[in-house]
Amino acid sequence: MTKKNATLYGLGIGPGDPELMTLKAHRLLQSVPVVAYPAPDTGDSLARAIAAPHLPDGLVEIVIKTPMTPGNFPANDIYDHYATEISVHLDAGRDVAVLCEGDPFLYGSFMYVFERLSGNYRTEVVPGVSSLGAVAAAAKWPLVSRNQILTILPAPLDEAVLERRLAETDAAAIMKVGRHLEKVKRVLKRLGLEENAQYIERASMADEKVSALKDVSADAAAPYFSMILVRQKDGAVT
Amino acid sequence: MTKKNATLYGLGIGPGDPELMTLKAHRLLQSVPVVAYPAPDTGDSLARAIAAPHLPDGLVEIVIKTPMTPGNFPANDIYDHYATEISVHLDAGRDVAVLCEGDPFLYGSFMYVFERLSGNYRTEVVPGVSSLGAVAAAAKWPLVSRNQILTILPAPLDEAVLERRLAETDAAAIMKVGRHLEKVKRVLKRLGLEENAQYIERASMADEKVSALKDVSADAAAPYFSMILVRQKDGAVT
Repeated sequence: MTKKNATLYGLGIGPGDPELMTLKAHRLLQSVPVVAYPAPDTGDSLARAIAAPHLPDGLVEIVIKTPMTPGNFPANDIYDHYATEISVHLDAGRDVAVLCEGDPFLYGSFMYVFERLSGNYRTEVVPGVSSLGAVAAAAKWPLVSRNQILTILPAPLDEAVLERRLAETDAAAIMKVGRHLEKVKRVLKRLGLEENAQYIERASMADEKVSALKDVSADAAAPYFSMILVRQKDGAVT
Repeated sequence: MTKKNATLYGLGIGPGDPELMTLKAHRLLQSVPVVAYPAPDTGDSLARAIAAPHLPDGLVEIVIKTPMTPGNFPANDIYDHYATEISVHLDAGRDVAVLCEGDPFLYGSFMYVFERLSGNYRTEVVPGVSSLGAVAAAAKWPLVSRNQILTILPAPLDEAVLERRLAETDAAAIMKVGRHLEKVKRVLKRLGLEENAQYIERASMADEKVSALKDVSADAAAPYFSMILVRQKDGAVT
């Protein structure tokens, strides 16, 4: 298939600190005429806020409004709509960079744009610093070494699934903790792992928060961008 | 405990492409007087090669020679030795940046320096783009979305362990493939997953190589820095 001339970039912009953007993402932001980024229905776009110090004036900006309704995600018609809007620019020969918090292909919404457009347009994915690395750095908590197994678990999973997977891995990162904090604490306590867990909010951002999980109240209001790192008791990293 | 004035940095410098270094790592490289980096017994340091375009003249360089002898890793006396060498600079008030391929806390050797020095010296970990993100970007292969589970498995693990973990995860990244290629191919074939796997060598580097795993011969010479990404057949990412 012949692909058109303009390039679609999936641009990893890192976990929150604008300085954790790569040199490559920074260079591309100075050269593309169009950027697109996800934003909640109401409120500001985190991706745009991360990139803001590096965005030149005069860019065309496409705000991908994505309602975060559980059970209705991804909203196919919404991504169809924005893919069309992006393709109009690509057809006109204008490169488009889709800003992605963290890394584009690790739980990122860029894949919904990617699957709609990469068949027809030249596409480049620029990896970014993931929240995983940022969280470990914030907590000063080495994740895994040598031949250890690391499991990445979204907190919304069923309690039984979480428990089974946590019981058998050397280390885990539990993402998207948010309103699932109480459930996760309960599971870890049952496994005898609560003492081996760290809780991290908004890693690398100005309001970053790190705490031993045992010191976090089960009814604390954890934001969506919070994570728990845990290691087996006998699984010393070194 | 009172910590001394100089800072030890664990500096994630990314997966290989020097442009995938963060702005922060780049800035710190212009300010520290001393860098340290791992290197094999014989041959060049990959970490130094990645950082080379960004290293100012006149830095003090500490080469952490680490023999990669299976079964004898980490070599405790070697890390004791280099930790002492690094601490001499920190005691004299000179910041030291330890260059880490990928991300410092994801299978990185920085943790051996960290565990020896972070109790006594101010330490900052700067996350970097991991090989995981670079590999997914190279293969144009979204890793996981929504509530999918991602398991990171070192290929040297026992065949039975690999098989059990691969059977029950939505997606996996199998690291350090190297001489374990034949074993991993055998396991994936048995699970009916070989068709759903990508093989990637030296992601983001000049000699990057991406191939469907089924097209890679089981007796191909895979380098240590090779990875296999795999998804369940019924686990479409989107």
